[in-house]
Amino acid sequence: MLSDINNKHSVFHFQLSTIMTNTYSIGIDIGGTNTDIGLVSAEGRCVARKNLPTRQYFDADLYVSDICKKIYEMMEEQHVAAIDGIGIAAPMGNYYTGCIDNATNLNFRGTTNLNALVHKYIDVPVTVSNDANAAAYGELVYGGAKGMSNFITFTLGTGVGSGIVIDGKLLHGKTGNAGELGHVILIPDGRPCGCGRRGCLETYASATGIRYTALELLEKRPQYDGVLSKISKEKLTSKHVGDAAHDGDPLALEVFEKTGQWLGIAMANAVAFSSPEAIFLMGGPVKAGEVLLRPLRETFKKSLCFVYDGSVDIRVSELPDNDAAILGAAALTKNK
Amino acid sequence: MLSDINNKHSVFHFQLSTIMTNTYSIGIDIGGTNTDIGLVSAEGRCVARKNLPTRQYFDADLYVSDICKKIYEMMEEQHVAAIDGIGIAAPMGNYYTGCIDNATNLNFRGTTNLNALVHKYIDVPVTVSNDANAAAYGELVYGGAKGMSNFITFTLGTGVGSGIVIDGKLLHGKTGNAGELGHVILIPDGRPCGCGRRGCLETYASATGIRYTALELLEKRPQYDGVLSKISKEKLTSKHVGDAAHDGDPLALEVFEKTGQWLGIAMANAVAFSSPEAIFLMGGPVKAGEVLLRPLRETFKKSLCFVYDGSVDIRVSELPDNDAAILGAAALTKNK
Repeated sequence: MLSDINNKHSVFHFQLSTIMTNTYSIGIDIGGTNTDIGLVSAEGRCVARKNLPTRQYFDADLYVSDICKKIYEMMEEQHVAAIDGIGIAAPMGNYYTGCIDNATNLNFRGTTNLNALVHKYIDVPVTVSNDANAAAYGELVYGGAKGMSNFITFTLGTGVGSGIVIDGKLLHGKTGNAGELGHVILIPDGRPCGCGRRGCLETYASATGIRYTALELLEKRPQYDGVLSKISKEKLTSKHVGDAAHDGDPLALEVFEKTGQWLGIAMANAVAFSSPEAIFLMGGPVKAGEVLLRPLRETFKKSLCFVYDGSVDIRVSELPDNDAAILGAAALTKNK
Repeated sequence: MLSDINNKHSVFHFQLSTIMTNTYSIGIDIGGTNTDIGLVSAEGRCVARKNLPTRQYFDADLYVSDICKKIYEMMEEQHVAAIDGIGIAAPMGNYYTGCIDNATNLNFRGTTNLNALVHKYIDVPVTVSNDANAAAYGELVYGGAKGMSNFITFTLGTGVGSGIVIDGKLLHGKTGNAGELGHVILIPDGRPCGCGRRGCLETYASATGIRYTALELLEKRPQYDGVLSKISKEKLTSKHVGDAAHDGDPLALEVFEKTGQWLGIAMANAVAFSSPEAIFLMGGPVKAGEVLLRPLRETFKKSLCFVYDGSVDIRVSELPDNDAAILGAAALTKNK
């Protein structure tokens, strides 16, 4: 009898996995310049992708209609008959309303109701959120956070985005904008931020912050004549600093030392809020590797309140770089 | 027929409310000096209370046995036949384990399993948490947060405690110690904290912090000859500063101005985490009233990231001062 039951279980598992691999979702990552649209399998593989030049659209209806055309094209090309949902990650994307509200890097002003516009063309559930929340959910569904209930992600890019998962669900809060840890004030009266305030984490720990720190140090170290001193101030980017650090440039290493320390404090503070099991890091500057992660982990450990000692892992995202944004968006379709 | 149904509903409601008012819980607030035990009605009235001198107990079993005796005495005196649960608020009280772990202000060293000890004498559900979490839950069940899903409380005392409610539930996190916002680093490399680190919010915004700020300002303002300059440095308390501020003393007012500003930044940062609908303030220093609340609200508004504009109320706890700790502990019995 026992072997019979086991056989039944095996058959059932086989059928379930067959059904699973036949289920596809759409992930859409709306950026200021490009919109990436991907067809994602149940196990988290981006099997096809297309894109549109966001900046060339001034009419939201036409924009969404073209997105939906691309979706139908992909489904036809890949012989996919049905999709189970569409997840959209957009700057200022609001989970509760399904809208983008006043995103400064898009040509559509005011409120764009993505949910309603998509439903004019495709009748599947549509989930909208901001890109940082999508990244967190991508990590949960397809990445290193599989099976976790409580974790936080920090995405280092032009700014610092973050997503918070509590009890297996994305935290949205009253406004739908919970988890804006890039705009936590790290240094009161510190560096000016694009949000109009001062001292926000993202002025220190983003690609923009890394550039700012490098320029500050170049000013303070007139005797330094390394590779970064050969690049004009206007042209210097965080990528230059990362490459220089990789080659052992002392000023670049100092920049990442400081960046890691600032992030370490911010992450220890985040732990005092939700006591997560892990914090995941993603985004361009994370590619700098240990020159960023070593000081980050050291300062994190020193800054962590003793009640959390040993309870939190600092980890790097396990999503593939190229598809991370699309996978994150597609993962939103799994958020209940 | 309709009137019949309505009648049935009325009868049902009447019976339900009768049952409700006959349901009592026990709230126990364990402090380093005293342990307060209260019998709390369903509508949140503390109908009887007793206490024990915590400091005189060195044996946890005897201590809990005496607590249980007091509970039976109260029930007998108040003619209460049954209770639906016991909530215990204790420093380092852990929701997951039902234990107190290494509380520095108690004579019982190591781990005290309150849950197991109580069950030796009384067989009802026992819920343990720390005092700040209990305060938050008290506000939800019996106070100003009734009906809210997302809010945060800050309790200003010797330290700064906090409790975070998300989707109507207390946030415990992986360790059971989520919501230690008193130990968020507000000023990197700032004032030394009892936890061994520097710059924690509680070194600025607690009663201890208020005393520290007053001493710093007394040092900086040698020309000041107001009431606070007449008190020896050793004897100066936050209560002195509060009374002086109430009487318009300029140095005391400056202390509360700074305290309010620090709290305003910390609260704006907390909003960037969970986007709550309200933040509640409780504890001794809050009695200073507008001299604290005005600068707090002003700095909070300036420090809040624009996406949260107008979404959060800063409010004072609506629990009665004398019974707040017992009501908070009793409220824990309602946490599912």
